[in-house]
Amino acid sequence: MVTLINKFTVAGESSDFVRIWQQSSEFMRQQPGFISFRLVRSLNNPDVYINIAEWADAESHQRVVGSPNFQQHIAELAAVAVPEPNLCEVVIAHASA
Amino acid sequence: MVTLINKFTVAGESSDFVRIWQQSSEFMRQQPGFISFRLVRSLNNPDVYINIAEWADAESHQRVVGSPNFQQHIAELAAVAVPEPNLCEVVIAHASA
Repeated sequence: MVTLINKFTVAGESSDFVRIWQQSSEFMRQQPGFISFRLVRSLNNPDVYINIAEWADAESHQRVVGSPNFQQHIAELAAVAVPEPNLCEVVIAHASA
Repeated sequence: MVTLINKFTVAGESSDFVRIWQQSSEFMRQQPGFISFRLVRSLNNPDVYINIAEWADAESHQRVVGSPNFQQHIAELAAVAVPEPNLCEVVIAHASA
């Protein structure tokens, strides 16, 4: 499993960003290898949204990123926010009992 | 529930950072309101580690951040990495069936 953490700093309207992001996420969640996502918003900096998404493996995620559909979604998002993606592997995890 | 996303850019040795972070996490997970954490590492930029932690509420997290124990841990971490914390609320979440 890999974790994509994509930090978006919104330059325009937050509502535009969330609407476009939601359309893009409808597409993402139908792709092979998609496990889950969570879009969170910073309490200290409301212009910052962070997508935490889980994919089965890096190949699944990269296949989607390379698709024309995704390129269109990311172009629409880039018009309202600056993305800062990091595809990550888990080092340590712990949940309370 | 709130989600803390703390991005660390390691300036020194990765192994030092992980060791210090692990000690600090032993403390964090014993605090009231702690739910879970995951430390992930960027595949495209191996100097970047991101902690994704869940807390019951912002008050629980802030109580811990204000404690002398935490201040000592964060000073040790800051000696080897630059932190960039965002305490966040969930906007949209979805998991595949």
